[in-house]
Amino acid sequence: MSGGGANAMWGGRFGRGPEAIMEAINASISYDKRLAPQDIAGSRAHAAMLAAQGIITEADAQAIDTGLQQVLAEIEAGDFAFSAALEDIHMNVESRLTQIIGPAAGRLHTARSRNDQVAVDFRLWVRDQCDTAIEGLTRLMRAFLVQAEAGADWVMPGFTHLQTAQPVTWGHHMLAYVEMLARDRGRFMDARARMNECPLGAAALAGTSFPIDRARTAAALGFDRPTANSLDSVSDRDFALEYLSAASICALHLSRFAEELVIWSSAQFRFVRLSDGFSTGSSIMPQKRNPDAAELLRAKIGRILGANIALMTVMKGLALTYSKDMQEDKEQVFDAADTLNLSLEVMEGMVRDMSANRDALEAAASSGFSTATDLADWLVRELGLPFREAHHVTGALVKMAEDAGCDLPELTLEAMQSVHQDITGAVFDVLGVHNSVASRTSYGGTAPENVRAQIVRWAEVLG
Amino acid sequence: MSGGGANAMWGGRFGRGPEAIMEAINASISYDKRLAPQDIAGSRAHAAMLAAQGIITEADAQAIDTGLQQVLAEIEAGDFAFSAALEDIHMNVESRLTQIIGPAAGRLHTARSRNDQVAVDFRLWVRDQCDTAIEGLTRLMRAFLVQAEAGADWVMPGFTHLQTAQPVTWGHHMLAYVEMLARDRGRFMDARARMNECPLGAAALAGTSFPIDRARTAAALGFDRPTANSLDSVSDRDFALEYLSAASICALHLSRFAEELVIWSSAQFRFVRLSDGFSTGSSIMPQKRNPDAAELLRAKIGRILGANIALMTVMKGLALTYSKDMQEDKEQVFDAADTLNLSLEVMEGMVRDMSANRDALEAAASSGFSTATDLADWLVRELGLPFREAHHVTGALVKMAEDAGCDLPELTLEAMQSVHQDITGAVFDVLGVHNSVASRTSYGGTAPENVRAQIVRWAEVLG
Amino acid sequence: MSGGGANAMWGGRFGRGPEAIMEAINASISYDKRLAPQDIAGSRAHAAMLAAQGIITEADAQAIDTGLQQVLAEIEAGDFAFSAALEDIHMNVESRLTQIIGPAAGRLHTARSRNDQVAVDFRLWVRDQCDTAIEGLTRLMRAFLVQAEAGADWVMPGFTHLQTAQPVTWGHHMLAYVEMLARDRGRFMDARARMNECPLGAAALAGTSFPIDRARTAAALGFDRPTANSLDSVSDRDFALEYLSAASICALHLSRFAEELVIWSSAQFRFVRLSDGFSTGSSIMPQKRNPDAAELLRAKIGRILGANIALMTVMKGLALTYSKDMQEDKEQVFDAADTLNLSLEVMEGMVRDMSANRDALEAAASSGFSTATDLADWLVRELGLPFREAHHVTGALVKMAEDAGCDLPELTLEAMQSVHQDITGAVFDVLGVHNSVASRTSYGGTAPENVRAQIVRWAEVLG
Amino acid sequence: MSGGGANAMWGGRFGRGPEAIMEAINASISYDKRLAPQDIAGSRAHAAMLAAQGIITEADAQAIDTGLQQVLAEIEAGDFAFSAALEDIHMNVESRLTQIIGPAAGRLHTARSRNDQVAVDFRLWVRDQCDTAIEGLTRLMRAFLVQAEAGADWVMPGFTHLQTAQPVTWGHHMLAYVEMLARDRGRFMDARARMNECPLGAAALAGTSFPIDRARTAAALGFDRPTANSLDSVSDRDFALEYLSAASICALHLSRFAEELVIWSSAQFRFVRLSDGFSTGSSIMPQKRNPDAAELLRAKIGRILGANIALMTVMKGLALTYSKDMQEDKEQVFDAADTLNLSLEVMEGMVRDMSANRDALEAAASSGFSTATDLADWLVRELGLPFREAHHVTGALVKMAEDAGCDLPELTLEAMQSVHQDITGAVFDVLGVHNSVASRTSYGGTAPENVRAQIVRWAEVLG
Repeated sequence: MSGGGANAMWGGRFGRGPEAIMEAINASISYDKRLAPQDIAGSRAHAAMLAAQGIITEADAQAIDTGLQQVLAEIEAGDFAFSAALEDIHMNVESRLTQIIGPAAGRLHTARSRNDQVAVDFRLWVRDQCDTAIEGLTRLMRAFLVQAEAGADWVMPGFTHLQTAQPVTWGHHMLAYVEMLARDRGRFMDARARMNECPLGAAALAGTSFPIDRARTAAALGFDRPTANSLDSVSDRDFALEYLSAASICALHLSRFAEELVIWSSAQFRFVRLSDGFSTGSSIMPQKRNPDAAELLRAKIGRILGANIALMTVMKGLALTYSKDMQEDKEQVFDAADTLNLSLEVMEGMVRDMSANRDALEAAASSGFSTATDLADWLVRELGLPFREAHHVTGALVKMAEDAGCDLPELTLEAMQSVHQDITGAVFDVLGVHNSVASRTSYGGTAPENVRAQIVRWAEVLG
Repeated sequence: MSGGGANAMWGGRFGRGPEAIMEAINASISYDKRLAPQDIAGSRAHAAMLAAQGIITEADAQAIDTGLQQVLAEIEAGDFAFSAALEDIHMNVESRLTQIIGPAAGRLHTARSRNDQVAVDFRLWVRDQCDTAIEGLTRLMRAFLVQAEAGADWVMPGFTHLQTAQPVTWGHHMLAYVEMLARDRGRFMDARARMNECPLGAAALAGTSFPIDRARTAAALGFDRPTANSLDSVSDRDFALEYLSAASICALHLSRFAEELVIWSSAQFRFVRLSDGFSTGSSIMPQKRNPDAAELLRAKIGRILGANIALMTVMKGLALTYSKDMQEDKEQVFDAADTLNLSLEVMEGMVRDMSANRDALEAAASSGFSTATDLADWLVRELGLPFREAHHVTGALVKMAEDAGCDLPELTLEAMQSVHQDITGAVFDVLGVHNSVASRTSYGGTAPENVRAQIVRWAEVLG
Repeated sequence: MSGGGANAMWGGRFGRGPEAIMEAINASISYDKRLAPQDIAGSRAHAAMLAAQGIITEADAQAIDTGLQQVLAEIEAGDFAFSAALEDIHMNVESRLTQIIGPAAGRLHTARSRNDQVAVDFRLWVRDQCDTAIEGLTRLMRAFLVQAEAGADWVMPGFTHLQTAQPVTWGHHMLAYVEMLARDRGRFMDARARMNECPLGAAALAGTSFPIDRARTAAALGFDRPTANSLDSVSDRDFALEYLSAASICALHLSRFAEELVIWSSAQFRFVRLSDGFSTGSSIMPQKRNPDAAELLRAKIGRILGANIALMTVMKGLALTYSKDMQEDKEQVFDAADTLNLSLEVMEGMVRDMSANRDALEAAASSGFSTATDLADWLVRELGLPFREAHHVTGALVKMAEDAGCDLPELTLEAMQSVHQDITGAVFDVLGVHNSVASRTSYGGTAPENVRAQIVRWAEVLG
Repeated sequence: MSGGGANAMWGGRFGRGPEAIMEAINASISYDKRLAPQDIAGSRAHAAMLAAQGIITEADAQAIDTGLQQVLAEIEAGDFAFSAALEDIHMNVESRLTQIIGPAAGRLHTARSRNDQVAVDFRLWVRDQCDTAIEGLTRLMRAFLVQAEAGADWVMPGFTHLQTAQPVTWGHHMLAYVEMLARDRGRFMDARARMNECPLGAAALAGTSFPIDRARTAAALGFDRPTANSLDSVSDRDFALEYLSAASICALHLSRFAEELVIWSSAQFRFVRLSDGFSTGSSIMPQKRNPDAAELLRAKIGRILGANIALMTVMKGLALTYSKDMQEDKEQVFDAADTLNLSLEVMEGMVRDMSANRDALEAAASSGFSTATDLADWLVRELGLPFREAHHVTGALVKMAEDAGCDLPELTLEAMQSVHQDITGAVFDVLGVHNSVASRTSYGGTAPENVRAQIVRWAEVLG
């Protein structure tokens, strides 16, 4: 269209067509062609409704429907010649439909506009992404559950500040991510439910005087109901923003486990071994198993959060209703969704394939007086000491062990009694790391029996 | 504590206390004192549960409870001397409790740690903010409904690209914001439901061996249930992030209406007059009514979105479980919540007080051939023209009117028939702006009857 | 590589090749092929230096150089088959070079690694973008200067809060953007100077024991000097972040003028008419000239700021040196740079083509007692009134004019003297909008003579 | 002011004063009182210039100057009663000045407005922050240099992907941060130079007709020159945004070293021991030295980046000139600057106090065939093997060592020659970690002699 005459659709009154550079910034077909299936589904539903309401003839509707199916087939087969001069997917499809079925194609645009058309297309696309995310999360949760089951009673350090605090179980650590992912799932479900209203029929912005049946198109496209305000329908991108918010938090969770994997894969930790399939190596340094996939997953939050900020910034302070600014919505969401879906799949593969180094985990958990808290709790529980006094006694016993170059379970009872005379041999029951984790049976605690109960619960939830 | 001995709580083994500058960066009491009511409520619930489970005596529990109530009273009265050396609200409260009730205070910390304590405190606080936001949104929706009712049939320009597209009703425009705010309300409700699990009892990170009853504390604090994984319980800040996400989108909606108010208040638009209470003026330019409040509301999204990004960035890539990084959560959420609550209240006041300039709105709506679409639709509907041909005819009629220096309703029937002979006098029924809006009766359309029906619906929803 | 054997380069010791999905997340060739010219330039400089230092033979260096030129020619001609199994541009080029020249290609990688190779490639690319931005800014500044010259003395409202405050000149308003863009130019210049150090020779991360001459490669590639620390050389992405920061602020400036264009193009303002080339229209509403390009430019800050945040988030908390996270740098910068360059060009075209509506500007400037400040200043300057008293008198005179339904210049001298008896006829010299702007001759003030002087200054600066 | 009459300054014509809630959102005195020194410095310079130009009398100027000094003294002594009804620091100061010196105070506001007043105040404040950052960075660089000097030849693992790649020196690693911080310093210097133009005299937005001497006030306040465009002068917040951008990148660098400190402090790494002053402990777990300060520094980028985004979002799409949105600038910058300054100081303290565990560093560096690259390089350099073949031979030798359970230096020459017969005993010179680092003498390489030379260079630069 550049350099030539005016735009075929709206430019009849313009003396001059758009600049080449205007086409470069204005045309969206290079990316919104991805909405072709949604665009055609929306058009088919609209045409069927128009016919049912007597607004167009059945014959026209049938021609439109057949023609649209042909267009979709051409696109899916890669036989469709997209045109930047036709700006967007809507005009590309309609133009081709006109070639195929002739003037009847012109009736399809009755009682709608590109404003509600793009709103419904994009909403359908984002709704699908919610479903994809929910499925991806479910699969990833299952992968964590498999790891949790295998290591329900494996002992590892529970860290705070990346310092060993108390022993916990591998299964329990895996389940922590299941909880996070379950909240992510919930957020995508809520977002999906909230966005599941059909904007089609809002027309340009004011609704229409044609006797359309919006409930019918809404139902045909799987929406719960039509949107209730036409201005809002064409101005709203909340569904995209809420998707991006949920995706950002989800990517945050992935970044946390990815960080753990990078640290755990170091020569100093050796807590896990990532599979060959998700590592890269060095041709000369055999021990080097670079956790590339984990690093990439740690990074992906940047991309998704960036998309979130981008669209928030775009929408900030926009007067109603549709403004061209909103065309910036699609690429951000496309990229974020592709990134999230790939990330969930890669993380699932990594989790499924990784091997925990059980010995290294237990050795790390057993060092550093990690059961000092258990000792203190025993003093409170069994001897009735106030918490702060129990801490004092424990500190003295740890100091004694440290000076003796041993760990707490290796102190003699006599030595312990020299610090507090009421200590009995029963104390040794809580000092080993296995005893420690087994004792933490409070709901949500790290005891293997709890871990197994949670696995059962999640298996039921996930079906 | 700076320059002096070691920290009283954990520093016994340290040779030297923290640097003054370490205290400056480390202590949180200057802001987390705001959590005092939540901290004390959590402690009271915990103590009552400990007694019910026989972990502490009823006498101790009673002393603790009475003492905690006294501490809260002191804080509320402004009589409490907060100490930075005691770092945070938890230690400040406990220290004072010890002064009041003596060693029994030490039993309160049985089977918990600061990790789950801060988790429950902050969660309670954020939950309250969800409720506050929901209330603020409800009030603001009511203010928009009042405006919508007053102007259900006032005609104004419906804009796309800030260009007049079609006439709409003032009431319909107001209702567009009701829809946005309703989605915001839904997001806060969903967030509240998702966060309503009690982390108390997760202890440091692994749960506890004390026979605690987490369901009891959860219920006492109004939670639906206890959290299911202790590691996640102390690592999780999703509740804060989801609150910030919902608040960001909500602030985005406010920024959009604020932008409209700024534009509508200009001398060129004169669509609304903001009340004195929400404007500032110039001592010498009487016509100048600066829409300061609107501008501030347009800006507030920056602050809330900034807080959202801040906490996302903080949490990115954090290994489990608690790390001190997470202490950065509170100030961000405090500021965002204060900002949101104030913004909702100010917007409510502005909306309530503003006066639409009905004449200016209608005059603007009536210019620029704003009913050309109605004409085109009539040609399609009544004469059966294909949409694209109807557009062609309409363009010609508009050109004719433009050349004649008049608007469409002022063309004669004869003149119209010279463009398309089948046009009848019935066409004039759709050409006025009042006719136009009245005709758009499709569900969600701008017709006054639709607006009134939606107002009734919302009144029922809001109770 | 997926599903098959191990990676050809580093996977000899791996039992199994990467998963297909790993390749999908890991391979960068789909986008980093864009670095081919930089990669080949870097390799040519490196090979020449190796030969000059006697590390490889002249014959090998010549073969490498000729081969690399052939590879570049193939890529530029579109004849190059990029392979995802070869992961990135570096391996794709080297692999093809080996096909062309045989084993000598293996000597090219002496004393370097992919870590310093990608660092130099990407830095060269970003440095070019700085130059492109500087050129684009210069052209855009010239376009604003042309507008400023044409309207050096056209009067328009100077707005605060989108309320008319004082009359200013069109030329002065245009020059405000020249100032902003000049700062942008300065930021890109500073960024370019700071990044202009050559990381080549840092090798994997520690430097090398080969007797390389880093100053030589640095000079050959147009760098000021080699980088001084090999660890930093492969860890650093400051150059990308600083580019993104400068681009974000620049995009912010564009968003501000874009907002003005959208508002000024409204039917209510009619301050400017954008050219056909940068507008879109409606087939039936002739008055509708949608400022699409302006809206898109208003939005582009979202995209660029999003990229900025994305990379900041990626780099947050990364331990030294190279981590795979950093592979996320390129797509963000590529997209931001493409967006910025296109935005500058589109804005230049819009500014060049737009027509100010001189009459509408002056009419708007003349309404609303916009010279009240001039009157107050006259009272201070000529009658010696304290500023606050002058404001009081002015307020009374404005009220008088308002009550009389006239503007200030239409008041009689007698009427004025009834408010303050010392007022003389000379006051009328400051009351018209042309008088007003002409009087503001303080440096940086809006007087036409100032505007013209600034245009001269800028013409000299821009050459 | 709430509930009462109209605002004293601009509200004379308003029927009703602002709402209480409007005051809450509108008044800035609660935070902009921090600008008092800058505000008063600006006013003193302005008054002196007015007198020098004969615009006010010397007597008035003297009274104003003396009065302003008294106001500042009252504020510094904490004796000043700030009033929210007076909105901001400017009106609070002026109101008090009027109480002290009477009507002459009214002459101070001649030829200026709050718009240029706040612009100069805030710019002075931010300029100071640049100086503070430069000083803080310089001190922190010195702390790293001290560490570098102590451990110029200590060997540690050079990591990529948190996997040992090659041995490097501690001093070299420390110097990597000196490079980063030097770039930060450069950015603050550039930002300072760019912002160092004085907006005072731009008046409300258009300049003034008073014969002011802007060069004089600019010089008096230490600016290089006055700003060249009055509209830009009151609209511009680039100086704040550029400060925030530089601060964000600086905080990013701090987050990277903080991450390293957290990892290095873990029981698994034990590379460093943070001092008591910058750690927190556990009362019962003696080995637990929580790197709280490092974690907080890792997090602070969130806060600073959040402020950056916040102000970018606020400024997005703002029409010229001043809008109230811009009042959101100060709190963001105040908080970011306080955070950055504190962070630099804390990091300086941590770096100064930390102890590297030289033995642990060397042991880690020596494991994992970390000199395999040196071997390969030797094969290329001494035997003339192509790089890829050298890698193949190295891989075989590493495999041999791995199978033998030893490291490379422990292989016999005969064993090596069985893989490649040309290998000589000279190879052993490159296989130890000390040999390895000593050999990397290329400019920027990790050799101790390079490290020492860089320390000398930096000592000269920092003076």
